[in-house]
Amino acid sequence: MDSRQRKLTRYVATVEYDGSFFYGWQKQKELPTVQDELENAFSKVGDNNIHVVGAGRTDTGVHALQQVVHFDSVNIRVPLSWLRGANTLLPKGVSILSVSEVLPEFHARFTAVGRSYRYIVLNRPVAPTYLYRRVTWDYRTLDIFRMREAAKHLIGEHDFNAYRATSCQSKSSVRNLRKLEINSKGEWIWFDVEAGSFLHHMVRNIVGVLLSIGAGDQEPIWAKAVLDSRNREAGGVTASPDGLYLVGVAYPSLYDIPRGTNVQFW
Amino acid sequence: MDSRQRKLTRYVATVEYDGSFFYGWQKQKELPTVQDELENAFSKVGDNNIHVVGAGRTDTGVHALQQVVHFDSVNIRVPLSWLRGANTLLPKGVSILSVSEVLPEFHARFTAVGRSYRYIVLNRPVAPTYLYRRVTWDYRTLDIFRMREAAKHLIGEHDFNAYRATSCQSKSSVRNLRKLEINSKGEWIWFDVEAGSFLHHMVRNIVGVLLSIGAGDQEPIWAKAVLDSRNREAGGVTASPDGLYLVGVAYPSLYDIPRGTNVQFW
Repeated sequence: MDSRQRKLTRYVATVEYDGSFFYGWQKQKELPTVQDELENAFSKVGDNNIHVVGAGRTDTGVHALQQVVHFDSVNIRVPLSWLRGANTLLPKGVSILSVSEVLPEFHARFTAVGRSYRYIVLNRPVAPTYLYRRVTWDYRTLDIFRMREAAKHLIGEHDFNAYRATSCQSKSSVRNLRKLEINSKGEWIWFDVEAGSFLHHMVRNIVGVLLSIGAGDQEPIWAKAVLDSRNREAGGVTASPDGLYLVGVAYPSLYDIPRGTNVQFW
Repeated sequence: MDSRQRKLTRYVATVEYDGSFFYGWQKQKELPTVQDELENAFSKVGDNNIHVVGAGRTDTGVHALQQVVHFDSVNIRVPLSWLRGANTLLPKGVSILSVSEVLPEFHARFTAVGRSYRYIVLNRPVAPTYLYRRVTWDYRTLDIFRMREAAKHLIGEHDFNAYRATSCQSKSSVRNLRKLEINSKGEWIWFDVEAGSFLHHMVRNIVGVLLSIGAGDQEPIWAKAVLDSRNREAGGVTASPDGLYLVGVAYPSLYDIPRGTNVQFW
């Protein structure tokens, strides 16, 4: 049988990774990325060239608790064979949590209806040790009430042009920020954000602005001034990728994609 | 003034470190250890040769949330100068949390009245990613009720000869295990242990025996059989250092040593 006529079977997988081990999600020449490693592993297990589509790209250093990917294979394998086989082939820093067959119209990126991220800051005078590169360190005194006040201006549907990377290629810069919650416990401060989708660097740019406000360098209303400017140059520094975790991707329930658990260090 | 006649001032410091960055606590030729790094940093800040005494040695890979050390200096510095100066000089993976002057009879090791450790296991089919080398991975199904049953035989004062490293140089192998608690949440299992002091590898050997029992390879009574044998060869495998954290060291309250917080990933 000609391979062009072979029926493809679609699979969905959930993947956890430590972004400090990779040069981001997206395939690159010569540098190890998460997509590369997954494609190599699945291609060997499936004994055909497998292309992996992720729900979203993550930058170098950004972690994922549950990235969702789909891929097609001409050769059928039971989910446990994909899972165990590929995990054996993957390097340290990336693990496949689940694999299942999925309806052929499912698309990891386009079927997704929401993405949630957590951004974690260790707020104390001295640097993290056992969570080096797993959290963002900020030694300034941060006022979470100021940051919450600022966050109110960002929740909802807005043109987030001032909060996206200048290199962002999305046609529209309008996004609906459904959630932006800031909590703290002891030396820990964390930001929980949710939207249908995000612009490039959007979470890190929002956190960068909020941290400047929390530290007292700017007033809470500055978050709105930056938003209204629609100008990236009006924004603050892009916060480090170290503390950023892609927590999960939401899909219509009919696809039955397993949900993961969140990360916390407190 | 001759340096032999100079008055020494004693300081106590609390230190956090990631054991995966160092070849253990104790000074070695050519290999980086926590003690080495602290001595280099304090010696530069104090502008004299400073020897650091720790509450206890930790093996390569074992982490500390609050190791306690003391040191003497001929030159006086305010605590904040020791803290900031030394932290600036330390490499990644080790941070000084506090420094204060302490009574000259205080000794980090001999004044200590208790040590507490937490041992953390990620119990799931696939390897850890963002907590690689920060937790121990066990993919076997572990029954914590079996492990708790076994733990009852170990609590209290016993001859722990079968649970110490053959290289352990302690004169007596009798120790009083005040606490050995096992808890779980989701994919996490953790062991909290406390004693006045521990033998070399004692925590890791206890956890090794309990994990074999939890996995069903041995019955709970085996923990007692190993204990009664007083023979290291009767014991199980030494559990990995990855999941072991020195949580804190207890001292009589008159010394006012700050206590740290525990670690948890759930």
